[in-house]
Amino acid sequence: MRPKSNIVHLPVYQPGKPVEDVKRELGLSEVIKLASNENPYGCSSKVREAVLEEIERSSIYPDGASIELTEALAGKLEVDARSVIFGSGSSEIILMIARAFLAPGDETIMADETFSQYKHNAEVENAHIIEVPLKEGVHDLQAMLEKVTDRTKVLWICNPNNPTGTIVKHDELIAFMKAVPEHVLVVLDEAYGEYIDDPAYSDGVQMLKEYRNLVVLRTFSKIYGLAALRIGYGVGHPDVIHFINQVREPFNTTRVAQAAAKASLADDEFVANCRIHNSQGLAYMCEKFDELGLNYFPAYGNFIMVDAKRPSQEVFQSLLQKGVIVRPRWAHYPSYIRVSVGTPEQNVKFIAALEVVLQEAAVQKS
Amino acid sequence: MRPKSNIVHLPVYQPGKPVEDVKRELGLSEVIKLASNENPYGCSSKVREAVLEEIERSSIYPDGASIELTEALAGKLEVDARSVIFGSGSSEIILMIARAFLAPGDETIMADETFSQYKHNAEVENAHIIEVPLKEGVHDLQAMLEKVTDRTKVLWICNPNNPTGTIVKHDELIAFMKAVPEHVLVVLDEAYGEYIDDPAYSDGVQMLKEYRNLVVLRTFSKIYGLAALRIGYGVGHPDVIHFINQVREPFNTTRVAQAAAKASLADDEFVANCRIHNSQGLAYMCEKFDELGLNYFPAYGNFIMVDAKRPSQEVFQSLLQKGVIVRPRWAHYPSYIRVSVGTPEQNVKFIAALEVVLQEAAVQKS
Repeated sequence: MRPKSNIVHLPVYQPGKPVEDVKRELGLSEVIKLASNENPYGCSSKVREAVLEEIERSSIYPDGASIELTEALAGKLEVDARSVIFGSGSSEIILMIARAFLAPGDETIMADETFSQYKHNAEVENAHIIEVPLKEGVHDLQAMLEKVTDRTKVLWICNPNNPTGTIVKHDELIAFMKAVPEHVLVVLDEAYGEYIDDPAYSDGVQMLKEYRNLVVLRTFSKIYGLAALRIGYGVGHPDVIHFINQVREPFNTTRVAQAAAKASLADDEFVANCRIHNSQGLAYMCEKFDELGLNYFPAYGNFIMVDAKRPSQEVFQSLLQKGVIVRPRWAHYPSYIRVSVGTPEQNVKFIAALEVVLQEAAVQKS
Repeated sequence: MRPKSNIVHLPVYQPGKPVEDVKRELGLSEVIKLASNENPYGCSSKVREAVLEEIERSSIYPDGASIELTEALAGKLEVDARSVIFGSGSSEIILMIARAFLAPGDETIMADETFSQYKHNAEVENAHIIEVPLKEGVHDLQAMLEKVTDRTKVLWICNPNNPTGTIVKHDELIAFMKAVPEHVLVVLDEAYGEYIDDPAYSDGVQMLKEYRNLVVLRTFSKIYGLAALRIGYGVGHPDVIHFINQVREPFNTTRVAQAAAKASLADDEFVANCRIHNSQGLAYMCEKFDELGLNYFPAYGNFIMVDAKRPSQEVFQSLLQKGVIVRPRWAHYPSYIRVSVGTPEQNVKFIAALEVVLQEAAVQKS
């Protein structure tokens, strides 16, 4: 009884400590988690009612094709319904693309570093993975293009990039799409795209009319605040979506998630408010980092990566003691932490804790 | 841009007609669906409260390792927590087993016919699929054993079998497990196992102590009535579960599903009642089929497969006109329909409709 040889080295996901455990272990009455880029404002108030109605049908299989939700989304995006596919989070769309397009030995290109699931799924498929270093935290599209060969099947662009928070600009992306051969499927992951209100940022869906070899991924886990319910989507040419559908499980999203997502799509005000609050939170953090003399990457999502000038695991532990959970341990950025934008109160608490941590370090050093 | 050559022929899931559409199109005020083996009694009353509490955390990612639910289930089954893995329905466990164990060209053995997702997932992995005909609707374990080679990786047994509803008896299964080489992972799918109260039926989990190369699949979609929420599980040796975990998505089940499943596990009375009602429903159907002179396979789950003595698609259409949706079109059983056990009222309505359909057919014939 042997699994595929290419999966035996893969790490098993280690869950983060629940907030309740941290409180108990450290004797803290309040702990804030700014580690998973979750929406601190929850979700639209319309969701609760939709879920309550749907839970009455708990024993009935979901609509596997998500017909109502597809119609609502396709209408909003002004695309053909056959251009849309839903997944259990956009993570599952990543899995399905890997499963549909990558055979052992096929080449796939991604940034280093970027969202971990591109590499993880490519490893499961035993594809040949080509990682291209970021350039000052930004995807190096020219270097990625140079790695394309006849064997390249899928190329992943995370925009904004997780964990660095940077974006590739619209004109660079257009130039890239014009240059990349048509046999390469380009996956443009816009999980954090709705947070951005900057003309330099591309709306990938707008680009689909021009480029048949593009798939755009989005999620309800971030600005829509539905991470608990696992629903995201892909938009692309109907032929590409058809191929992804061929490996989709018949009932891959829940009734509750479909209903919640549909209700969320009808509440533009919630999304707009979250976008504004997030921009204000980012501006506040940047201002404070500047005051503290800390470098950070230009942030476009609901998180920011800052150089704490010390091994990030130490900074993580010190912040934890003060009741703030952030995300350390980035291979190429050993002194950086990634912190999610919280509520104004959470952001103030984080900055205050960070100031103390930096002062303590300075004292130890001197 | 080309997908894997082995997936392009795969059918895309075609959703069944929603009950509401059938009502509108046929002008019927009442339509009953006995096509998907759903629980006609819904789910435990404890579920609603658990879901309401959990929905307050919609924006927070689920516990990827399902720690609380794992503890509850492992305690109930009296197994090590490391022996358990959850999936988005047991379907996702099937997917994960295929992804972890099947490389292109590996051999996998299954019955013909049986639950479609074993074959579908093996096809996606480009495995070599060996289908072994059922013997009077029952898995032919001896013939399956004879197909085992050094290249066999995974062998699937659906018990009770979907769609025929038959079981392999405990002593046959033990003899099979003794004979099958250890390099073959045997997947014992007990999706409908909780419906059975017959000493001839094996409890696969009890067999795990003896056989390291066995994984048992179960689901909350059937007797627990949570099909809408997508949650099922696998139980096996910790080494096997570890391999499956290596291809698991970090957040593959929702918060709502985990909470609902945990609440369901605490309500043995609901399960016991559903089991009794189901047995009574099966007994009623068998009695009526006997009166009508119809053959059927011995049924152990919450569904039964009966020979309507006419092309099943015709029977399906005729029943549909009378407001009853069943499942036709079985490759090896062209005159059989699969019907789920409903409430007593639904079962009476189905039998009444079937009687009329058979009479109409007799009149046309004469």
